[in-house]
Amino acid sequence: MLIGTVIGNVWATKKDPTLSGLRFLVIRPFTTNGDESAESIVAVDPLGAGIGERVLVVFGRAARHCIGRSHDIGFQTAVSAIIDRLELDDGRVIGPTKAEDHTPERPDSIPSDPANQ
Amino acid sequence: MLIGTVIGNVWATKKDPTLSGLRFLVIRPFTTNGDESAESIVAVDPLGAGIGERVLVVFGRAARHCIGRSHDIGFQTAVSAIIDRLELDDGRVIGPTKAEDHTPERPDSIPSDPANQ
Amino acid sequence: MLIGTVIGNVWATKKDPTLSGLRFLVIRPFTTNGDESAESIVAVDPLGAGIGERVLVVFGRAARHCIGRSHDIGFQTAVSAIIDRLELDDGRVIGPTKAEDHTPERPDSIPSDPANQ
Amino acid sequence: MLIGTVIGNVWATKKDPTLSGLRFLVIRPFTTNGDESAESIVAVDPLGAGIGERVLVVFGRAARHCIGRSHDIGFQTAVSAIIDRLELDDGRVIGPTKAEDHTPERPDSIPSDPANQ
Amino acid sequence: MLIGTVIGNVWATKKDPTLSGLRFLVIRPFTTNGDESAESIVAVDPLGAGIGERVLVVFGRAARHCIGRSHDIGFQTAVSAIIDRLELDDGRVIGPTKAEDHTPERPDSIPSDPANQ
Repeated sequence: MLIGTVIGNVWATKKDPTLSGLRFLVIRPFTTNGDESAESIVAVDPLGAGIGERVLVVFGRAARHCIGRSHDIGFQTAVSAIIDRLELDDGRVIGPTKAEDHTPERPDSIPSDPANQ
Repeated sequence: MLIGTVIGNVWATKKDPTLSGLRFLVIRPFTTNGDESAESIVAVDPLGAGIGERVLVVFGRAARHCIGRSHDIGFQTAVSAIIDRLELDDGRVIGPTKAEDHTPERPDSIPSDPANQ
Repeated sequence: MLIGTVIGNVWATKKDPTLSGLRFLVIRPFTTNGDESAESIVAVDPLGAGIGERVLVVFGRAARHCIGRSHDIGFQTAVSAIIDRLELDDGRVIGPTKAEDHTPERPDSIPSDPANQ
Repeated sequence: MLIGTVIGNVWATKKDPTLSGLRFLVIRPFTTNGDESAESIVAVDPLGAGIGERVLVVFGRAARHCIGRSHDIGFQTAVSAIIDRLELDDGRVIGPTKAEDHTPERPDSIPSDPANQ
Repeated sequence: MLIGTVIGNVWATKKDPTLSGLRFLVIRPFTTNGDESAESIVAVDPLGAGIGERVLVVFGRAARHCIGRSHDIGFQTAVSAIIDRLELDDGRVIGPTKAEDHTPERPDSIPSDPANQ
Protein backbone atom coordinates (compact mmCIF):
# COMPACT_ATOMS: atom_id res chain seq x y z
CA MET A 1 0.00 0.00 0.00
CA LEU A 2 1.69 3.16 -1.15
CA ILE A 3 1.06 6.75 -2.13
CA GLY A 4 1.63 7.89 -5.69
CA THR A 5 0.87 10.67 -8.12
CA VAL A 6 -1.28 10.06 -11.19
CA ILE A 7 0.97 10.86 -14.16
CA GLY A 8 -0.86 9.36 -17.11
CA ASN A 9 -3.56 7.32 -18.76
CA VAL A 10 -3.33 3.94 -20.51
CA TRP A 11 -5.23 2.71 -23.57
CA ALA A 12 -5.26 -0.89 -24.73
CA THR A 13 -7.61 -2.54 -27.21
CA LYS A 14 -6.15 -6.03 -27.23
CA LYS A 15 -6.56 -7.26 -23.66
CA ASP A 16 -7.99 -9.83 -21.33
CA PRO A 17 -11.81 -9.47 -21.53
CA THR A 18 -12.07 -8.79 -17.77
CA LEU A 19 -10.18 -5.51 -18.28
CA SER A 20 -12.91 -4.04 -20.51
CA GLY A 21 -14.61 -0.91 -19.22
CA LEU A 22 -12.00 -0.21 -16.55
CA ARG A 23 -9.93 2.98 -16.33
CA PHE A 24 -6.16 2.44 -16.09
CA LEU A 25 -3.79 5.05 -14.69
CA VAL A 26 -0.01 5.36 -14.70
CA ILE A 27 1.15 6.22 -11.17
CA ARG A 28 4.54 7.40 -9.92
CA PRO A 29 5.42 6.35 -6.35
CA PHE A 30 5.76 9.24 -3.90
CA THR A 31 9.21 9.75 -2.38
CA THR A 32 9.72 11.68 0.84
CA ASN A 33 12.82 13.49 -0.44
CA GLY A 34 11.17 14.96 -3.53
CA ASP A 35 13.13 12.90 -6.07
CA GLU A 36 11.08 11.73 -9.02
CA SER A 37 11.02 7.97 -9.11
CA ALA A 38 11.64 6.50 -12.58
CA GLU A 39 9.48 3.55 -11.67
CA SER A 40 5.82 3.52 -12.55
CA ILE A 41 2.92 1.29 -11.72
CA VAL A 42 -0.43 0.85 -13.41
CA ALA A 43 -3.65 0.79 -11.38
CA VAL A 44 -7.34 0.46 -12.12
CA ASP A 45 -9.18 3.55 -10.85
CA PRO A 46 -12.78 3.31 -9.65
CA LEU A 47 -12.71 6.77 -7.99
CA GLY A 48 -12.08 9.13 -10.91
CA ALA A 49 -8.65 10.47 -9.90
CA GLY A 50 -7.25 13.14 -12.22
CA ILE A 51 -3.74 13.77 -13.55
CA GLY A 52 -1.54 15.19 -10.79
CA GLU A 53 -3.64 13.90 -7.90
CA ARG A 54 -2.11 11.91 -5.06
CA VAL A 55 -3.73 8.53 -4.53
CA LEU A 56 -3.47 5.48 -2.30
CA VAL A 57 -2.66 2.34 -4.30
CA VAL A 58 -3.42 -1.20 -3.13
CA PHE A 59 -2.53 -4.61 -4.52
CA GLY A 60 -3.90 -8.15 -4.82
CA ARG A 61 -7.03 -9.03 -2.88
CA ALA A 62 -7.52 -5.46 -1.69
CA ALA A 63 -7.42 -4.25 -5.30
CA ARG A 64 -10.02 -6.77 -6.41
CA HIS A 65 -12.22 -5.68 -3.52
CA CYS A 66 -11.97 -2.01 -4.50
CA ILE A 67 -13.18 -2.77 -8.02
CA GLY A 68 -15.98 -4.96 -6.71
CA ARG A 69 -14.91 -8.01 -8.66
CA SER A 70 -14.54 -11.61 -7.64
CA HIS A 71 -11.45 -13.78 -8.03
CA ASP A 72 -11.33 -14.33 -11.76
CA ILE A 73 -10.00 -11.05 -12.97
CA GLY A 74 -6.88 -10.12 -14.90
CA PHE A 75 -5.62 -7.24 -12.76
CA GLN A 76 -4.19 -6.79 -9.31
CA THR A 77 -3.63 -3.10 -8.54
CA ALA A 78 -6.22 -0.38 -7.79
CA VAL A 79 -6.69 3.13 -6.45
CA SER A 80 -8.43 2.86 -3.07
CA ALA A 81 -8.42 6.53 -2.01
CA ILE A 82 -7.73 10.03 -3.30
CA ILE A 83 -5.45 11.80 -0.82
CA ASP A 84 -6.56 15.10 0.74
CA ARG A 85 -3.46 15.72 2.80
CA LEU A 86 -0.30 14.15 4.21
CA GLU A 87 1.31 15.80 7.22
CA LEU A 88 4.97 14.83 7.60
CA ASP A 89 7.21 15.02 10.66
CA ASP A 90 9.45 17.65 9.03
CA GLY A 91 6.52 20.08 8.90
CA ARG A 92 5.69 19.58 5.25
CA VAL A 93 2.05 19.31 4.24
CA ILE A 94 1.57 17.35 1.03
CA GLY A 95 -1.66 18.41 -0.67
CA PRO A 96 -3.96 16.68 -3.13
CA THR A 97 -1.65 17.90 -5.93
CA LYS A 98 1.91 19.27 -6.05
CA ALA A 99 0.65 22.85 -6.48
CA GLU A 100 -0.92 22.62 -3.05
CA ASP A 101 2.14 21.27 -1.19
CA HIS A 102 3.44 23.43 1.61
CA THR A 103 7.01 23.40 2.96
CA PRO A 104 7.44 25.38 6.19
CA GLU A 105 10.09 28.08 6.39
CA ARG A 106 13.00 26.78 8.36
CA PRO A 107 13.60 28.87 11.49
CA ASP A 108 17.38 28.49 11.10
CA SER A 109 17.47 29.96 7.59
CA ILE A 110 18.62 33.54 7.07
CA PRO A 111 16.02 35.55 5.18
CA SER A 112 17.47 37.13 2.04
CA ASP A 113 15.07 40.04 2.30
CA PRO A 114 13.73 40.78 5.78
CA ALA A 115 11.04 43.05 4.34
CA ASN A 116 9.35 39.98 2.94
CA GLN A 117 9.10 38.23 6.29
CA MET B 1 0.80 -4.59 -12.46
CA LEU B 2 3.34 -2.81 -14.61
CA ILE B 3 4.11 -1.77 -18.14
CA GLY B 4 7.06 -3.26 -19.98
CA THR B 5 8.57 -3.72 -23.41
CA VAL B 6 8.93 -7.16 -24.95
CA ILE B 7 12.66 -7.64 -25.51
CA GLY B 8 13.01 -11.34 -26.13
CA ASN B 9 11.82 -14.90 -26.30
CA VAL B 10 12.58 -17.85 -24.03
CA TRP B 11 13.01 -21.51 -24.93
CA ALA B 12 13.16 -24.32 -22.41
CA THR B 13 12.82 -28.05 -23.00
CA LYS B 14 13.30 -29.29 -19.46
CA LYS B 15 10.46 -27.77 -17.48
CA ASP B 16 7.44 -28.32 -15.32
CA PRO B 17 4.83 -30.09 -17.51
CA THR B 18 2.27 -27.31 -16.95
CA LEU B 19 4.52 -24.91 -18.89
CA SER B 20 4.24 -26.92 -22.12
CA GLY B 21 2.67 -25.13 -25.06
CA LEU B 22 2.92 -21.68 -23.50
CA ARG B 23 4.81 -18.77 -25.04
CA PHE B 24 7.33 -17.08 -22.71
CA LEU B 25 8.56 -13.53 -23.25
CA VAL B 26 11.40 -11.53 -21.69
CA ILE B 27 10.06 -8.12 -20.66
CA ARG B 28 11.92 -4.98 -19.59
CA PRO B 29 10.03 -2.73 -17.14
CA PHE B 30 9.12 0.71 -18.53
CA THR B 31 10.74 3.69 -16.79
CA THR B 32 9.30 7.19 -17.06
CA ASN B 33 12.72 8.83 -17.47
CA GLY B 34 13.78 6.76 -20.45
CA ASP B 35 16.56 4.86 -18.68
CA GLU B 36 16.83 1.22 -19.69
CA SER B 37 16.21 -0.97 -16.66
CA ALA B 38 18.73 -3.83 -16.34
CA GLU B 39 16.06 -5.92 -14.67
CA SER B 40 13.94 -8.29 -16.69
CA ILE B 41 10.91 -10.38 -15.98
CA VAL B 42 9.49 -13.39 -17.79
CA ALA B 43 5.80 -13.60 -18.62
CA VAL B 44 3.51 -16.06 -20.36
CA ASP B 45 1.85 -14.38 -23.33
CA PRO B 46 -1.63 -15.44 -24.47
CA LEU B 47 -2.11 -12.36 -26.70
CA GLY B 48 0.68 -12.71 -29.27
CA ALA B 49 2.74 -9.62 -28.39
CA GLY B 50 5.74 -9.03 -30.65
CA ILE B 51 9.29 -7.87 -29.95
CA GLY B 52 9.31 -4.15 -29.13
CA GLU B 53 5.64 -3.95 -28.14
CA ARG B 54 4.57 -2.42 -24.83
CA VAL B 55 2.47 -4.72 -22.69
CA LEU B 56 0.69 -4.78 -19.35
CA VAL B 57 2.10 -7.50 -17.07
CA VAL B 58 0.18 -9.05 -14.17
CA PHE B 59 1.21 -11.47 -11.41
CA GLY B 60 -0.20 -14.29 -9.30
CA ARG B 61 -3.92 -14.97 -9.44
CA ALA B 62 -4.47 -12.41 -12.18
CA ALA B 63 -1.81 -14.13 -14.31
CA ARG B 64 -3.40 -17.56 -13.86
CA HIS B 65 -6.75 -16.04 -14.85
CA CYS B 66 -5.32 -14.54 -18.04
CA ILE B 67 -3.99 -17.94 -19.16
CA GLY B 68 -7.26 -19.63 -18.28
CA ARG B 69 -5.70 -22.14 -15.95
CA SER B 70 -6.68 -23.28 -12.49
CA HIS B 71 -4.52 -23.21 -9.39
CA ASP B 72 -2.06 -26.00 -10.09
CA ILE B 73 0.26 -24.35 -12.52
CA GLY B 74 3.96 -23.61 -12.42
CA PHE B 75 3.94 -19.95 -13.47
CA GLN B 76 2.79 -16.68 -12.01
CA THR B 77 3.30 -13.84 -14.51
CA ALA B 78 1.35 -13.08 -17.70
CA VAL B 79 0.71 -10.45 -20.35
CA SER B 80 -2.86 -9.15 -19.84
CA ALA B 81 -2.95 -6.38 -22.48
CA ILE B 82 -1.01 -4.97 -25.42
CA ILE B 83 -0.70 -1.21 -24.94
CA ASP B 84 -1.99 1.14 -27.66
CA ARG B 85 -0.98 4.38 -26.01
CA LEU B 86 0.14 6.00 -22.74
CA GLU B 87 -0.39 9.73 -22.33
CA LEU B 88 1.87 11.21 -19.67
CA ASP B 89 1.53 14.48 -17.76
CA ASP B 90 4.67 15.92 -19.35
CA GLY B 91 3.04 15.77 -22.78
CA ARG B 92 4.75 12.62 -23.96
CA VAL B 93 2.70 10.03 -25.81
CA ILE B 94 4.13 6.53 -25.49
CA GLY B 95 3.08 4.41 -28.45
CA PRO B 96 2.73 0.68 -28.97
CA THR B 97 6.48 0.59 -29.78
CA LYS B 98 9.38 2.99 -29.23
CA ALA B 99 9.33 4.09 -32.88
CA GLU B 100 5.87 5.52 -32.32
CA ASP B 101 6.66 7.49 -29.15
CA HIS B 102 6.13 11.23 -29.36
CA THR B 103 7.86 13.83 -27.18
CA PRO B 104 6.40 17.34 -27.52
CA GLU B 105 8.71 20.25 -28.36
CA ARG B 106 9.39 22.23 -25.23
CA PRO B 107 8.21 25.85 -25.59
CA ASP B 108 11.17 27.08 -23.53
CA SER B 109 13.78 25.53 -25.80
CA ILE B 110 15.70 27.69 -28.25
CA PRO B 111 15.29 26.42 -31.80
CA SER B 112 18.64 25.75 -33.46
CA ASP B 113 17.18 26.55 -36.86
CA PRO B 114 14.16 28.87 -36.80
CA ALA B 115 13.35 28.03 -40.41
CA ASN B 116 12.32 24.56 -39.26
CA GLN B 117 9.80 25.78 -36.71
CA MET C 1 7.60 -7.77 7.68
CA LEU C 2 9.79 -4.77 8.34
CA ILE C 3 10.60 -2.08 10.85
CA GLY C 4 9.87 1.55 10.08
CA THR C 5 9.50 4.95 11.67
CA VAL C 6 6.16 6.75 11.68
CA ILE C 7 6.76 10.00 9.76
CA GLY C 8 3.29 11.26 8.97
CA ASN C 9 -0.46 11.03 8.84
CA VAL C 10 -2.76 10.61 5.85
CA TRP C 11 -6.22 12.11 5.27
CA ALA C 12 -8.54 11.04 2.47
CA THR C 13 -12.24 11.77 2.09
CA LYS C 14 -12.87 10.06 -1.22
CA LYS C 15 -12.05 6.42 -0.63
CA ASP C 16 -13.23 2.85 -0.65
CA PRO C 17 -15.94 2.59 2.06
CA THR C 18 -14.02 -0.13 3.93
CA LEU C 19 -11.28 2.40 4.72
CA SER C 20 -13.63 4.60 6.78
CA GLY C 21 -12.76 5.01 10.43
CA LEU C 22 -9.23 3.65 10.07
CA ARG C 23 -6.08 5.59 10.92
CA PHE C 24 -3.45 5.70 8.15
CA LEU C 25 0.23 6.41 8.81
CA VAL C 26 3.15 7.21 6.53
CA ILE C 27 6.10 5.00 7.48
CA ARG C 28 9.75 5.21 6.45
CA PRO C 29 11.58 1.85 6.32
CA PHE C 30 14.41 1.50 8.85
CA THR C 31 17.91 1.13 7.41
CA THR C 32 20.76 -0.35 9.43
CA ASN C 33 23.30 2.22 8.20
CA GLY C 34 21.32 5.27 9.26
CA ASP C 35 20.54 6.53 5.75
CA GLU C 36 17.06 7.96 5.35
CA SER C 37 15.14 5.92 2.81
CA ALA C 38 13.23 8.05 0.29
CA GLU C 39 10.63 5.31 0.01
CA SER C 40 7.54 5.40 2.12
CA ILE C 41 4.74 3.00 2.80
CA VAL C 42 1.25 3.59 4.17
CA ALA C 43 -0.15 1.38 6.92
CA VAL C 44 -3.36 1.16 8.90
CA ASP C 45 -2.61 1.55 12.60
CA PRO C 46 -4.79 -0.15 15.22
CA LEU C 47 -2.28 0.42 18.04
CA GLY C 48 -2.07 4.21 18.25
CA ALA C 49 1.57 4.71 17.23
CA GLY C 50 2.77 8.32 17.35
CA ILE C 51 5.02 10.33 15.04
CA GLY C 52 8.64 9.23 15.44
CA GLU C 53 7.85 5.82 16.91
CA ARG C 54 9.36 2.64 15.46
CA VAL C 55 6.80 0.06 14.44
CA LEU C 56 6.59 -3.41 12.93
CA VAL C 57 4.71 -3.38 9.61
CA VAL C 58 2.99 -6.43 8.12
CA PHE C 59 1.32 -7.04 4.76
CA GLY C 60 -1.54 -9.00 3.18
CA ARG C 61 -3.31 -11.58 5.28
CA ALA C 62 -1.37 -10.65 8.41
CA ALA C 63 -2.45 -7.01 7.98
CA ARG C 64 -6.11 -7.95 7.63
CA HIS C 65 -5.79 -10.07 10.77
CA CYS C 66 -4.30 -7.19 12.77
CA ILE C 67 -7.25 -4.94 11.90
CA GLY C 68 -9.73 -7.68 12.69
CA ARG C 69 -11.37 -7.60 9.30
CA SER C 70 -12.35 -10.37 6.96
CA HIS C 71 -11.31 -10.74 3.32
CA ASP C 72 -13.29 -7.99 1.65
CA ILE C 73 -11.30 -4.97 2.59
CA GLY C 74 -9.48 -2.38 0.53
CA PHE C 75 -6.15 -2.29 2.37
CA GLN C 76 -3.22 -4.63 2.83
CA THR C 77 -0.67 -3.11 5.21
CA ALA C 78 -0.88 -2.63 8.99
CA VAL C 79 1.11 -1.85 12.10
CA SER C 80 1.33 -5.05 14.18
CA ALA C 81 3.61 -3.87 17.00
CA ILE C 82 5.19 -0.76 18.48
CA ILE C 83 8.90 -1.43 19.00
CA ASP C 84 10.42 -1.04 22.47
CA ARG C 85 13.98 -1.86 21.52
CA LEU C 86 16.22 -3.36 18.83
CA GLU C 87 19.64 -4.65 19.86
CA LEU C 88 22.02 -4.88 16.91
CA ASP C 89 25.23 -6.91 16.58
CA ASP C 90 27.36 -3.75 16.32
CA GLY C 91 26.33 -2.77 19.84
CA ARG C 92 23.73 -0.21 18.88
CA VAL C 93 20.47 -0.12 20.75
CA ILE C 94 17.61 1.30 18.70
CA GLY C 95 14.97 2.75 20.98
CA PRO C 96 11.25 3.41 20.53
CA THR C 97 12.19 6.77 18.91
CA LYS C 98 15.42 8.19 17.46
CA ALA C 99 16.01 10.33 20.55
CA GLU C 100 16.39 7.15 22.57
CA ASP C 101 18.86 5.39 20.25
CA HIS C 102 22.22 4.52 21.75
CA THR C 103 25.45 3.99 19.80
CA PRO C 104 28.26 2.54 21.90
CA GLU C 105 31.59 4.34 22.01
CA ARG C 106 34.03 2.51 19.81
CA PRO C 107 37.01 1.20 21.78
CA ASP C 108 39.36 2.09 18.90
CA SER C 109 38.34 5.74 18.85
CA ILE C 110 40.61 8.34 20.40
CA PRO C 111 38.76 10.27 23.10
CA SER C 112 38.86 14.01 22.50
CA ASP C 113 38.76 14.65 26.22
CA PRO C 114 40.05 11.83 28.44
CA ALA C 115 38.48 13.45 31.49
CA ASN C 116 35.08 12.51 30.12
CA GLN C 117 35.89 8.81 29.85
CA MET D 1 8.90 -15.15 -12.48
CA LEU D 2 12.45 -14.39 -13.43
CA ILE D 3 15.53 -15.83 -15.05
CA GLY D 4 18.66 -16.46 -13.04
CA THR D 5 21.95 -18.29 -13.07
CA VAL D 6 22.67 -21.09 -10.60
CA ILE D 7 25.69 -19.94 -8.60
CA GLY D 8 25.76 -22.22 -5.61
CA ASN D 9 24.40 -24.91 -3.36
CA VAL D 10 22.98 -24.65 0.15
CA TRP D 11 23.27 -27.08 3.05
CA ALA D 12 21.25 -26.87 6.23
CA THR D 13 20.78 -29.51 8.91
CA LYS D 14 18.59 -27.59 11.32
CA LYS D 15 15.45 -26.76 9.36
CA ASP D 16 11.72 -27.07 9.07
CA PRO D 17 10.97 -30.81 8.55
CA THR D 18 9.19 -30.11 5.24
CA LEU D 19 12.51 -28.99 3.73
CA SER D 20 14.11 -32.43 4.18
CA GLY D 21 15.20 -34.19 1.02
CA LEU D 22 14.93 -31.09 -1.17
CA ARG D 23 17.81 -29.58 -3.15
CA PHE D 24 18.39 -25.87 -2.56
CA LEU D 25 20.24 -23.65 -5.03
CA VAL D 26 21.60 -20.11 -4.78
CA ILE D 27 20.51 -18.17 -7.87
CA ARG D 28 21.68 -14.79 -9.19
CA PRO D 29 19.04 -12.81 -11.12
CA PHE D 30 19.85 -12.27 -14.80
CA THR D 31 20.37 -8.65 -15.88
CA THR D 32 20.07 -7.57 -19.50
CA ASN D 33 23.11 -5.28 -19.34
CA GLY D 34 25.52 -7.95 -18.12
CA ASP D 35 26.07 -6.46 -14.65
CA GLU D 36 26.35 -9.02 -11.91
CA SER D 37 23.55 -8.51 -9.43
CA ALA D 38 24.69 -8.67 -5.80
CA GLU D 39 21.30 -10.00 -4.80
CA SER D 40 20.70 -13.69 -4.55
CA ILE D 41 17.66 -15.86 -4.09
CA VAL D 42 17.33 -19.43 -2.92
CA ALA D 43 15.13 -21.90 -4.79
CA VAL D 44 14.21 -25.54 -4.44
CA ASP D 45 15.23 -27.42 -7.58
CA PRO D 46 13.26 -30.48 -8.75
CA LEU D 47 14.89 -30.50 -12.21
CA GLY D 48 18.57 -31.07 -11.44
CA ALA D 49 20.01 -27.77 -12.68
CA GLY D 50 23.80 -27.51 -12.47
CA ILE D 51 26.12 -24.68 -11.47
CA GLY D 52 26.19 -22.04 -14.23
CA GLU D 53 22.90 -23.03 -15.83
CA ARG D 54 20.18 -20.47 -16.51
CA VAL D 55 16.85 -21.33 -14.94
CA LEU D 56 13.32 -19.96 -14.64
CA VAL D 57 12.41 -19.25 -11.01
CA VAL D 58 8.83 -19.09 -9.72
CA PHE D 59 7.35 -18.08 -6.36
CA GLY D 60 4.46 -18.89 -4.04
CA ARG D 61 1.73 -21.17 -5.29
CA ALA D 62 3.55 -21.87 -8.55
CA ALA D 63 6.62 -22.97 -6.57
CA ARG D 64 4.60 -25.33 -4.40
CA HIS D 65 3.06 -26.79 -7.55
CA CYS D 66 6.47 -27.42 -9.14
CA ILE D 67 7.61 -29.43 -6.11
CA GLY D 68 4.35 -31.36 -6.01
CA ARG D 69 3.54 -30.39 -2.46
CA SER D 70 0.34 -29.15 -0.87
CA HIS D 71 -0.11 -25.98 1.14
CA ASP D 72 1.71 -26.83 4.35
CA ILE D 73 5.28 -26.42 3.32
CA GLY D 74 8.04 -24.15 4.51
CA PHE D 75 9.33 -22.86 1.19
CA GLN D 76 8.06 -20.61 -1.55
CA THR D 77 10.54 -20.47 -4.44
CA ALA D 78 11.35 -23.14 -7.03
CA VAL D 79 13.07 -23.79 -10.35
CA SER D 80 10.34 -24.45 -12.94
CA ALA D 81 12.46 -24.73 -16.10
CA ILE D 82 16.06 -25.00 -17.30
CA ILE D 83 16.60 -22.43 -20.05
CA ASP D 84 17.82 -23.58 -23.47
CA ARG D 85 18.01 -20.16 -25.08
CA LEU D 86 16.93 -16.53 -24.78
CA GLU D 87 16.87 -14.42 -27.93
CA LEU D 88 17.00 -10.70 -27.18
CA ASP D 89 16.02 -7.76 -29.38
CA ASP D 90 19.62 -6.51 -29.55
CA GLY D 91 20.64 -9.69 -31.34
CA ARG D 92 22.17 -11.43 -28.36
CA VAL D 93 21.49 -15.11 -27.84
CA ILE D 94 21.76 -16.15 -24.20
CA GLY D 95 22.59 -19.83 -23.96
CA PRO D 96 22.06 -22.43 -21.26
CA THR D 97 25.33 -21.21 -19.66
CA LYS D 98 27.47 -18.09 -20.04
CA ALA D 99 30.04 -19.97 -22.15
CA GLU D 100 27.39 -20.49 -24.80
CA ASP D 101 26.18 -16.86 -24.98
CA HIS D 102 26.54 -15.16 -28.35
CA THR D 103 26.79 -11.40 -28.94
CA PRO D 104 26.49 -10.41 -32.60
CA GLU D 105 29.17 -8.24 -34.18
CA ARG D 106 27.85 -4.74 -34.49
CA PRO D 107 27.73 -3.60 -38.15
CA ASP D 108 28.73 -0.08 -37.13
CA SER D 109 31.91 -1.14 -35.39
CA ILE D 110 35.24 -0.65 -37.12
CA PRO D 111 37.13 -3.91 -37.36
CA SER D 112 40.59 -3.63 -35.83
CA ASP D 113 41.96 -6.17 -38.27
CA PRO D 114 40.07 -6.48 -41.57
CA ALA D 115 41.89 -9.73 -42.34
CA ASN D 116 39.90 -11.39 -39.57
CA GLN D 117 36.52 -10.42 -40.96
CA MET E 1 13.08 -17.12 -0.02
CA LEU E 2 16.44 -15.62 0.76
CA ILE E 3 19.54 -16.02 2.88
CA GLY E 4 20.39 -13.50 5.54
CA THR E 5 22.51 -12.95 8.60
CA VAL E 6 20.95 -12.50 12.03
CA ILE E 7 22.04 -9.04 13.19
CA GLY E 8 19.73 -8.26 16.07
CA ASN E 9 16.80 -8.89 18.35
CA VAL E 10 13.48 -7.07 18.60
CA TRP E 11 11.39 -6.33 21.69
CA ALA E 12 7.84 -5.03 21.59
CA THR E 13 5.29 -4.93 24.40
CA LYS E 14 2.42 -3.28 22.57
CA LYS E 15 1.54 -5.65 19.77
CA ASP E 16 -1.05 -7.83 18.13
CA PRO E 17 -1.86 -10.62 20.63
CA THR E 18 -0.88 -13.34 18.12
CA LEU E 19 2.73 -12.13 18.30
CA SER E 20 3.05 -12.98 22.01
CA GLY E 21 5.64 -15.57 22.91
CA LEU E 22 7.40 -15.45 19.54
CA ARG E 23 11.06 -14.55 19.05
CA PHE E 24 11.71 -11.79 16.50
CA LEU E 25 15.07 -11.33 14.78
CA VAL E 26 16.50 -8.54 12.63
CA ILE E 27 18.05 -10.08 9.52
CA ARG E 28 20.34 -8.51 6.90
CA PRO E 29 20.00 -9.99 3.38
CA PHE E 30 23.12 -11.78 2.12
CA THR E 31 24.81 -10.25 -0.92
CA THR E 32 27.16 -12.23 -3.13
CA ASN E 33 29.67 -9.38 -3.48
CA GLY E 34 30.18 -8.87 0.24
CA ASP E 35 28.53 -5.43 0.43
CA GLU E 36 26.49 -4.88 3.56
CA SER E 37 22.88 -4.27 2.61
CA ALA E 38 21.29 -1.34 4.48
CA GLU E 39 17.94 -3.06 4.26
CA SER E 40 16.73 -5.25 7.06
CA ILE E 41 13.85 -7.61 7.51
CA VAL E 42 12.23 -8.96 10.65
CA ALA E 43 11.45 -12.66 10.99
CA VAL E 44 9.94 -14.91 13.62
CA ASP E 45 12.45 -17.58 14.61
CA PRO E 46 11.28 -21.01 15.76
CA LEU E 47 14.76 -22.58 15.42
CA GLY E 48 16.84 -20.61 17.91
CA ALA E 49 19.27 -18.92 15.52
CA GLY E 50 21.94 -16.79 17.17
CA ILE E 51 23.45 -13.42 16.32
CA GLY E 52 25.76 -13.78 13.29
CA GLU E 53 24.25 -16.99 12.00
CA ARG E 54 23.13 -17.35 8.40
CA VAL E 55 19.52 -18.37 8.01
CA LEU E 56 16.95 -19.11 5.31
CA VAL E 57 14.00 -16.71 5.48
CA VAL E 58 10.56 -17.47 4.06
CA PHE E 59 7.43 -15.35 3.64
CA GLY E 60 3.64 -15.64 3.68
CA ARG E 61 2.09 -19.07 3.81
CA ALA E 62 5.47 -20.77 4.18
CA ALA E 63 6.21 -18.58 7.19
CA ARG E 64 2.91 -19.41 8.87
CA HIS E 65 3.63 -23.09 8.27
CA CYS E 66 7.07 -22.87 9.90
CA ILE E 67 5.56 -21.38 13.08
CA GLY E 68 2.79 -23.96 13.10
CA ARG E 69 0.02 -21.40 13.13
CA SER E 70 -3.17 -21.20 11.12
CA HIS E 71 -4.30 -18.30 8.98
CA ASP E 72 -5.23 -15.73 11.59
CA ILE E 73 -1.86 -14.48 12.63
CA GLY E 74 -0.26 -11.06 12.51
CA PHE E 75 3.09 -11.95 10.97
CA GLN E 76 4.35 -13.17 7.62
CA THR E 77 8.08 -13.84 7.74
CA ALA E 78 9.96 -16.70 9.45
CA VAL E 79 13.30 -18.46 9.70
CA SER E 80 12.91 -21.91 8.09
CA ALA E 81 16.50 -23.16 8.31
CA ILE E 82 19.88 -22.39 9.84
CA ILE E 83 22.52 -22.58 7.11
CA ASP E 84 25.49 -24.93 7.52
CA ARG E 85 27.25 -24.01 4.29
CA LEU E 86 26.87 -22.32 0.92
CA GLU E 87 29.26 -23.30 -1.86
CA LEU E 88 29.47 -20.66 -4.57
CA ASP E 89 30.68 -20.97 -8.16
CA ASP E 90 33.65 -18.66 -7.53
CA GLY E 91 35.06 -21.14 -5.02
CA ARG E 92 33.92 -19.35 -1.90
CA VAL E 93 32.46 -21.37 0.93
CA ILE E 94 30.09 -19.38 3.10
CA GLY E 95 29.93 -20.86 6.59
CA PRO E 96 27.33 -20.74 9.34
CA THR E 97 28.85 -17.40 10.42
CA LYS E 98 31.21 -14.89 8.79
CA ALA E 99 34.16 -16.11 10.86
CA GLU E 100 33.88 -19.46 9.13
CA ASP E 101 33.72 -18.15 5.54
CA HIS E 102 36.48 -19.31 3.23
CA THR E 103 37.68 -17.50 0.10
CA PRO E 104 40.05 -19.55 -2.06
CA GLU E 105 43.37 -18.11 -3.11
CA ARG E 106 43.15 -17.02 -6.71
CA PRO E 107 45.51 -18.99 -8.98
CA ASP E 108 46.23 -15.88 -11.05
CA SER E 109 47.41 -13.84 -8.08
CA ILE E 110 51.13 -13.35 -7.53
CA PRO E 111 52.15 -14.82 -4.19
CA SER E 112 53.88 -12.28 -2.00
CA ASP E 113 55.96 -15.02 -0.41
CA PRO E 114 56.51 -18.12 -2.55
CA ALA E 115 57.72 -20.05 0.49
CA ASN E 116 54.14 -20.04 1.77
CA GLN E 117 52.70 -21.68 -1.32
